[in-house]
Amino acid sequence: MTGSAAPCTIAVDVMGSDLGPSEFIRGLLYAREELKLDSEIILVGKERLLERLLKAQKSKFALGKLRIHHASEVVDMDDKPVMAMRSKKDASMFQAVNLLKEGEAHAVVSCGNTGALMAAGTIRLRPLEGVERPALGTIIPTKQKPCVLIDVGANPESNSLNLVHNAILGTNYARSALNLEQPRVGLLTIGTEDGKGNSLINETHAKLQQMGSIIHYIGPVEGFQIFEGDVDVVVCDGFVGNVLLKSSEAVFKFVGKTIRDELRRNAKRMLGAALAKSAFSDMRTRLSPDHHAGAPLLGLKGNILKSHGSSNYIAIANAIRIASEIVRHDMLDSIQSDILQANATLLEPSETASPE
Amino acid sequence: MTGSAAPCTIAVDVMGSDLGPSEFIRGLLYAREELKLDSEIILVGKERLLERLLKAQKSKFALGKLRIHHASEVVDMDDKPVMAMRSKKDASMFQAVNLLKEGEAHAVVSCGNTGALMAAGTIRLRPLEGVERPALGTIIPTKQKPCVLIDVGANPESNSLNLVHNAILGTNYARSALNLEQPRVGLLTIGTEDGKGNSLINETHAKLQQMGSIIHYIGPVEGFQIFEGDVDVVVCDGFVGNVLLKSSEAVFKFVGKTIRDELRRNAKRMLGAALAKSAFSDMRTRLSPDHHAGAPLLGLKGNILKSHGSSNYIAIANAIRIASEIVRHDMLDSIQSDILQANATLLEPSETASPE
Repeated sequence: MTGSAAPCTIAVDVMGSDLGPSEFIRGLLYAREELKLDSEIILVGKERLLERLLKAQKSKFALGKLRIHHASEVVDMDDKPVMAMRSKKDASMFQAVNLLKEGEAHAVVSCGNTGALMAAGTIRLRPLEGVERPALGTIIPTKQKPCVLIDVGANPESNSLNLVHNAILGTNYARSALNLEQPRVGLLTIGTEDGKGNSLINETHAKLQQMGSIIHYIGPVEGFQIFEGDVDVVVCDGFVGNVLLKSSEAVFKFVGKTIRDELRRNAKRMLGAALAKSAFSDMRTRLSPDHHAGAPLLGLKGNILKSHGSSNYIAIANAIRIASEIVRHDMLDSIQSDILQANATLLEPSETASPE
Repeated sequence: MTGSAAPCTIAVDVMGSDLGPSEFIRGLLYAREELKLDSEIILVGKERLLERLLKAQKSKFALGKLRIHHASEVVDMDDKPVMAMRSKKDASMFQAVNLLKEGEAHAVVSCGNTGALMAAGTIRLRPLEGVERPALGTIIPTKQKPCVLIDVGANPESNSLNLVHNAILGTNYARSALNLEQPRVGLLTIGTEDGKGNSLINETHAKLQQMGSIIHYIGPVEGFQIFEGDVDVVVCDGFVGNVLLKSSEAVFKFVGKTIRDELRRNAKRMLGAALAKSAFSDMRTRLSPDHHAGAPLLGLKGNILKSHGSSNYIAIANAIRIASEIVRHDMLDSIQSDILQANATLLEPSETASPE
């Protein structure tokens, strides 16, 4: 793992995005010029295509900190994960993960097929010692500061130990990505009275209460509290988190569409909307996920960030920025030590032995 | 059960609302005058208070179809359900449920403590034959027509048979409340490919595919599809549904607050907002739950509708309207027959025997 002062290299899978590889080149440019990022970048994808795209931008780049790693294949969005790992060995995503495994890169950023990225991460890199199931974290906006929601889909069938691990993974991610010292952790439930929720939640709550030295657990939180901003890490299983994330995005869009429809209904409203236009664009910026794009697959022996398939250049630049923050914070070392400490408290000695 | 032409009596617990009993009197007035509702109403609550409130409105009411049933106590929002059932026997909510059990009313509407209402419904009325767990349905807005979401919190620990029953309960509720002949049923999951989701979802999917003669199952749906309006009944367990409902409401409010903040930031925006004001109020009306207020507790031997604690008079009037629709549609008979048919298909003969 790389210390704070050491150089940091990020392998970027440029092939899996909806907007095409050129959006990555724009994102890289933005990361260099606006975010002042000086990590070394390895662009993983079709060499000739990337050379052509870079040539068009050449004067703008410090090419010394950029190189191309050729990969002849691409994982498609509808490829079956494990099948793709077998049949498309030279896909850009898998090559990027290989660079990570071989120590040539310290983190991977990809917009590609989530399932394939999770499979490659889990099978190639392996989970950290003591972690049963990796989890996908993401950052969502709230009325106050943004917060981490974990798990948003990696593990739809969790037990209470998995959820405690999610709390540890999310805490460490919030430290790196949101720059928080002691993130407040809440357990997502329905009704915060003792005994409400379900048996999984009650069991997890009891275990989280024993984690005082590792995380700052503030107790159960309800769905309506997530966007208040009173909690920095919201812990749930991958089924609930995925439904929550996708439905919340859908509500954002639905409300936006309804406002647009209503504002177009007559001339007076249209004039009003024109005058207030900047308010709507500022709102979009405030609620936009672009500045925190990049959902890390946490709990693995390596840093993998998944960005949304439709990420624009700003989102891509920020995913690269967050990847370098994670490396700078030695997040993996910190997760490993917290997980082992938690398992020592929660598991019988016979259960904590490494499976290998 | 009451047939289409038979009279319909609704017991209304007027004491549990955040806005007080007077909001119920306004709601009743609205139901009579605007919604043209002629069901007989039993107001359950403190007699002298109600008489005083009614006196102020007397000229406006057809008092012939209205009577008061005195109840001296009130279930508070923080009362423990089963404890309240023991210690507050004369609470308006429990008296209303008693009227239902004794056949004096065909439906109950209450804004009170959800847990206490569920406990009273489940313990006093009992579930219909073959139903293990009642479920709480609700109606949410979508880009097209509104849809039913079930379960939103009654049963946070469901098995696949419970979820199939939710599909049947939701279908019958959508027929009554949304006036649909053959509602399209979707199973909420994460990723609609075969084998995604979790084992509960995969098991439920297989069972729902056998329900072709009872419900119109169109397959799994993801969180982002709920608000598209392509499905009329969204089936999930009470944990997921409650998180989804509460977080969606929170997103609505959060987006609304962000727009308001942004529109107040300078004079030009404020002028624009003033010109477009009607667009925002029309939007609130379109997205408002008032017209479909009333979440029924389904699967019981009686019609119980829970309205939001903060329901205004329009929401209350519509809850009473929906209660009378449920009675008019003979919803209970129809649910009972569908449940028995489903159980005959899904259970071994030994399992379908009535537990009594």
